[in-house]
Amino acid sequence: MLFERVAFIGIGLIGSSLAHVMRRDKLAGHIAVSARTQKTLDTALKLGIADSVSLDAAEAVRDADLVMLCAPLGANAAIARAIGPSLKPGAIVSDVGSVKKSIIRDVAPHLADGVHLVPGHPVAGTEHSGPEAGFPELFDGRWCILTPAEGTDGAAVETVADLWRRAGMMIEMMDADHHDQVLAVTSHLPHLIAYTIVDTASDLEDHLKKEVVKFSAGGFRDFTRIAASDPVMWRDVFLSNKEAVLDILGRFTEDLTALQRAIRRNNGDHLYEAFTRTQEIRRGVIDAKQDDAPAPPEEKN
Amino acid sequence: MLFERVAFIGIGLIGSSLAHVMRRDKLAGHIAVSARTQKTLDTALKLGIADSVSLDAAEAVRDADLVMLCAPLGANAAIARAIGPSLKPGAIVSDVGSVKKSIIRDVAPHLADGVHLVPGHPVAGTEHSGPEAGFPELFDGRWCILTPAEGTDGAAVETVADLWRRAGMMIEMMDADHHDQVLAVTSHLPHLIAYTIVDTASDLEDHLKKEVVKFSAGGFRDFTRIAASDPVMWRDVFLSNKEAVLDILGRFTEDLTALQRAIRRNNGDHLYEAFTRTQEIRRGVIDAKQDDAPAPPEEKN
Repeated sequence: MLFERVAFIGIGLIGSSLAHVMRRDKLAGHIAVSARTQKTLDTALKLGIADSVSLDAAEAVRDADLVMLCAPLGANAAIARAIGPSLKPGAIVSDVGSVKKSIIRDVAPHLADGVHLVPGHPVAGTEHSGPEAGFPELFDGRWCILTPAEGTDGAAVETVADLWRRAGMMIEMMDADHHDQVLAVTSHLPHLIAYTIVDTASDLEDHLKKEVVKFSAGGFRDFTRIAASDPVMWRDVFLSNKEAVLDILGRFTEDLTALQRAIRRNNGDHLYEAFTRTQEIRRGVIDAKQDDAPAPPEEKN
Repeated sequence: MLFERVAFIGIGLIGSSLAHVMRRDKLAGHIAVSARTQKTLDTALKLGIADSVSLDAAEAVRDADLVMLCAPLGANAAIARAIGPSLKPGAIVSDVGSVKKSIIRDVAPHLADGVHLVPGHPVAGTEHSGPEAGFPELFDGRWCILTPAEGTDGAAVETVADLWRRAGMMIEMMDADHHDQVLAVTSHLPHLIAYTIVDTASDLEDHLKKEVVKFSAGGFRDFTRIAASDPVMWRDVFLSNKEAVLDILGRFTEDLTALQRAIRRNNGDHLYEAFTRTQEIRRGVIDAKQDDAPAPPEEKN
């Protein structure tokens, strides 16, 4: 057992998947869950991933050794303010958010000395959201990035790393600022683009829109899957990582404009060279064994 | 048996998959294959999908009842000019290209009266290319769009439709111009965007690029798969469907700029609304049963 008492604040896809891991491997003596709605709490109870539930986050974190913040990023400042005074000395506060600078900014000021903040980001997910979407194999073979500030208690960091290792993840330590730049490229920009293209399609004339759905197998389908992700979570990601997202988006727009001009001017060589350059990256992804998405058990056959 | 003699001009992913279907269901008495290189012809022989091979397309089409054009779009005009005089009266010329107006423009002028042009587009594929990438199940449950000109021989159209039905496809008849508009949205723009984002990443500083590959599971990975598609084929698609691609790209850029401004101005409501609108389209894709990609047999479990 790693923890006598764990508290989850927010219990969506990632939180519930981690709770499933804790149940499977008996890592927590007691799991307390807090969420915004009673419906979510009832679901957590029904799924067997909560020993106690409360709409009051401060109540849920009382006596907890580990507090996992799993709500959308925009909720963290208010949550931290609410739970700060109830945290027990020596407690570890961690999270699963896709942006790390903002969590440090929003949460750290509300924590007493002796409470350890270990920000984390398990880089895993599916397009589904909510507690029912969770499954314990979600993290298998994926990376978890931890971004503790300099001077953070080493034992607290190692405990969080150990938790994610037991969930099947590989651990990478990184500066929060650098994390946010990398993820802006690998995750935030792709989601923004996918949302945009699906939004563009949803604005088409009705007869065209129907056919776009019907013939989506030509590539569009993959974007609709990415763009099915939770809107609140992603709204908060873009607002929380504004600077890095706008920077990479600027580079993307330049490159897109260059390809657009090449098409307009019938510059086939420019297109061919760009489309060939991209293959090196694809080979890298395959070599890094990051090319297969984890599937929920029932989809695995 | 549907055809005594079939000729494939070009034998990549789509051509070889169709040839496998013909072998599996014994639809062709003789399959003649022509390609640009001896290496490809040797591969076709080794795969057992060619009874005869030739570097000379005109020789391959002699006496063929069906000629399937499966080379990149940019090659069609020269191929049509070369094979035109060798086609037997009553022969059907069809194709598998992703743009339909250009094929009619490039091929029709070179066909004698009594030769039937039935342009077709099986909307199916994987990111792999070349004859070894083909497999007969590629077309299962997907749409094949046929775009014959008004006045085309009905029996010839029905024969091509029958062929694709036996490959497992559903048939849709469409005007070539309309096809090119629909596919610009569902396939051409997604590929252009995927190529662009991977190209943007490949232009990053080296240390950042390595980490982008390492943490690609956050969304980027899906784009690298799309951007791994054949560069020559896609160069030709964009040049052949320039007008429709530039039109939808213009709409996309407007929508992206609006989201960019919303991020810059912290307009969370705008982001939330856009990210919610997209879910309707996703539901449509799932309802239309277009949400699962076909996998080569060895990747299926």
